Amino acid sequence: MYENIKVIAFDADDTLWVNETYFREAEHQFAKLLSKYETENKIDQELFKKEIDNLYFYGYGIKGFILSMIECALEISNYQISSKTIESIINIGKEMLEKPIELIDGIEDVLQNLQQKYKLIVATKGDLLDQERKLEKSNLLNYFHHIEVMSDKKTKDYKKLIKHLDIKPSELLMIGNSLKSDVLPLVEIGASAIHIPFHTTWIHEEVTVQETSTTNYKTLSNIKDVLKFF
Amino acid sequence: MYENIKVIAFDADDTLWVNETYFREAEHQFAKLLSKYETENKIDQELFKKEIDNLYFYGYGIKGFILSMIECALEISNYQISSKTIESIINIGKEMLEKPIELIDGIEDVLQNLQQKYKLIVATKGDLLDQERKLEKSNLLNYFHHIEVMSDKKTKDYKKLIKHLDIKPSELLMIGNSLKSDVLPLVEIGASAIHIPFHTTWIHEEVTVQETSTTNYKTLSNIKDVLKFF
Repeated sequence: MYENIKVIAFDADDTLWVNETYFREAEHQFAKLLSKYETENKIDQELFKKEIDNLYFYGYGIKGFILSMIECALEISNYQISSKTIESIINIGKEMLEKPIELIDGIEDVLQNLQQKYKLIVATKGDLLDQERKLEKSNLLNYFHHIEVMSDKKTKDYKKLIKHLDIKPSELLMIGNSLKSDVLPLVEIGASAIHIPFHTTWIHEEVTVQETSTTNYKTLSNIKDVLKFF
Repeated sequence: MYENIKVIAFDADDTLWVNETYFREAEHQFAKLLSKYETENKIDQELFKKEIDNLYFYGYGIKGFILSMIECALEISNYQISSKTIESIINIGKEMLEKPIELIDGIEDVLQNLQQKYKLIVATKGDLLDQERKLEKSNLLNYFHHIEVMSDKKTKDYKKLIKHLDIKPSELLMIGNSLKSDVLPLVEIGASAIHIPFHTTWIHEEVTVQETSTTNYKTLSNIKDVLKFF
């Protein structure tokens, strides 16, 4: 069924390796730093709002996340936050940038098989430096032709990607954990997509049933099952 | 003399449009915010050190610059800096992200001419979102096949770029304002480069005579002169 496919693009975070878990941990540490000002639940909500407001300025990735935590801390504390706490927030972010890589089970078999017949790329919204470093730590580097950093993962961004790759939409297959970012926009432009959910999803990446109902893609519970179709 | 060239890569900041000027302005505003703690000269030096220390974590671009300013302010003030001042520092950064685009004189003629015969790309170290936004504001978007974001501009990064483009080194010409980042590494790997200095250069981008003495590239005072060679 994938006979036209020339390029297979893999999302990176939570598709190749664990990532969202580290953001949840960071949010928990952040809430603890601010616990004297607000409940964890309220802090989570405010941080999320701040991240969404800041997407216009910072886009995706850990650096923007650190800046959003700082802005959120200033406001939640009504500007009473201490300089040492600001430093602790920056250190939460720097620790995220140095997390060890935990590969998604079975991913290496899948890449080994597919690389023989297809051009494999990484398509990510994160910071290039951060993603390159993770790819090197992961020892998956040699399976991929290159990393595509995308400022967002909407249809217009995938159209740009397809132009850049000089292929037709029908020649691209995207594999990722986010319905909203890795699946629906591709179906919309006539490309193929395989959805492999990760146990944790950032609220911003969640979509409602209506948005998904008319679409046509595969959902698999385990990345290893991808090979059944090739 | 450029008969083998297939792809011409343009550096973005200070090659297509003015940029370094805005960093100098931001550094000056930053020093003013901290003027009660240190001299502007000392603050400039400390900020530069902090930026270099943080390249490992943040790479290049405005988001890392904002985080470095904040860390620098914490230390220079011996953690006495106020929350409002931290907010002002973040606002300096957000203003940088919204600066109007001032094109380098003559760049549009050059792109118009070269695009007819070559694949033109942007090769930049900055944040993708920031560079895409500038490219849209600049109305130069349609001259370029795509934007290449590079985590750094050393020989290994240009080798990656050439692999990604599926061309030979001899088929790539890079045009930029930084000897260190846009010229010397390309000469080293057998690609071509044209150096067009901008009036302001970040210290980190400056190179000593030894580093340049044995190399072979063109230096032009004005981007328009590029056309004489095509």
